[in-house]
Amino acid sequence: MSKAGHVAVIGLGPGSAAQATPEASAAVTAAKWFYGYGPYVDRLELRPDQIKVASDNREEISRAQAALEKAAQGERVAVVSGGDPGVFAMAAAVCEAIEAGPAEWRDIDLTVVPGVTAMLAVAARIGAPLGHDFCAISLSDNLKPWDVIEKRLEAVARAGFVIALYNPISKARPWQLGKAFDQLRAILPAATPVIFGRAAGRPDEKIEVTPLGEADAARADMATCVIIGSAETRVIERGDRPALVYTPRFSVSGA
Amino acid sequence: MSKAGHVAVIGLGPGSAAQATPEASAAVTAAKWFYGYGPYVDRLELRPDQIKVASDNREEISRAQAALEKAAQGERVAVVSGGDPGVFAMAAAVCEAIEAGPAEWRDIDLTVVPGVTAMLAVAARIGAPLGHDFCAISLSDNLKPWDVIEKRLEAVARAGFVIALYNPISKARPWQLGKAFDQLRAILPAATPVIFGRAAGRPDEKIEVTPLGEADAARADMATCVIIGSAETRVIERGDRPALVYTPRFSVSGA
Repeated sequence: MSKAGHVAVIGLGPGSAAQATPEASAAVTAAKWFYGYGPYVDRLELRPDQIKVASDNREEISRAQAALEKAAQGERVAVVSGGDPGVFAMAAAVCEAIEAGPAEWRDIDLTVVPGVTAMLAVAARIGAPLGHDFCAISLSDNLKPWDVIEKRLEAVARAGFVIALYNPISKARPWQLGKAFDQLRAILPAATPVIFGRAAGRPDEKIEVTPLGEADAARADMATCVIIGSAETRVIERGDRPALVYTPRFSVSGA
Repeated sequence: MSKAGHVAVIGLGPGSAAQATPEASAAVTAAKWFYGYGPYVDRLELRPDQIKVASDNREEISRAQAALEKAAQGERVAVVSGGDPGVFAMAAAVCEAIEAGPAEWRDIDLTVVPGVTAMLAVAARIGAPLGHDFCAISLSDNLKPWDVIEKRLEAVARAGFVIALYNPISKARPWQLGKAFDQLRAILPAATPVIFGRAAGRPDEKIEVTPLGEADAARADMATCVIIGSAETRVIERGDRPALVYTPRFSVSGA
């Protein structure tokens, strides 16, 4: 009989407990070992018999390997991500580690528990900017060359997609978001709404809307998801209430 | 004093109660009137004082208008969607109705409650196919011309995005998915994994993987979300366990 254990890759949602699914909460209750980036692991309220193994932000593969090694000893292991674990997060890293790892890791019982990813949480706070065709792009260029990112931004902006940018800026990635805005300003109208959605659903939430022509990368930080409208995205002014931003369900021009 | 009421546009998640957020459940508890497509409204377990107003699938705008009219009378109204309400669902329809409607509708207290959208639920059941840059496209061409859809499919397939297709097929839309597969077969390798994710997380769930070269549109129905990998998407065979499908976080080629 195999002693292979279990790994649950869990999406904790955008941050507030009210936005984590009961399935995610149950998966946390069922695990013993918790691997994740420090701030996500710190969100967990664990029992004394549950053990946190926090690691740094850029150590996804070694974290995944450590979690799989522990599970291969027959343990119940959780790997936690903010938002959804399948969107620029730990589910792909765990799959990569399984593919490259020892054969017995393929016998580990793996479950992925989805969650509300950042772009959905940000969109909900402002209206419905993702109401029509959209894409999600990570601006992290330690995993792909910058020219690939530029090519993708151009393709989707010209084809009329709304664009959600993950990992827009960090100490190691100071100029990429500004360069992306410059590139998009050459393609999209200056009035195209840009949403800086920081910490949606959390106490320190800050959601700002600005026209692309004036979009300043300095408004973003590591906790920000940036959503750039298409040429069809609209703003509804509501007097004292915050404006709504939405992309109509219909499209006539394709750009 | 305004008598404007409240509208909550609520994402119920993919279907199982364990994948609906506590925030969504609380919003259901707080509302009196429930507007939505019949099958979504039927998912709700309501109190005797709560009132369901079910409507047909293609009536989004009239449904949104009816909900806003009711709220404008000072009522607490919920508009329910499966998955996330901001992804090809009711949040954009409500915004459209507000923009085109009487001025007092802008004074209605509107909240959007995000949920786990279908592509995230399907991806979680199979590994991490959305682990790198991806897009979501609705194949419903009653809201945009088919040539716009073709242009978008071509742009994202050539640029290396994973593609999630919503509304892939219906009685009114019998040929579009097959045509999309034909178009993508001319761009992507025949071995590119295609995931037919039906009713993820529900008792009648069915998740199938097939190479693009053999992808048959007849496998999809209205409850299916189809995910088409990029050229970099990989399949990990695991003997008796179902294969994993994932897209690596890194990208070298951009296509």
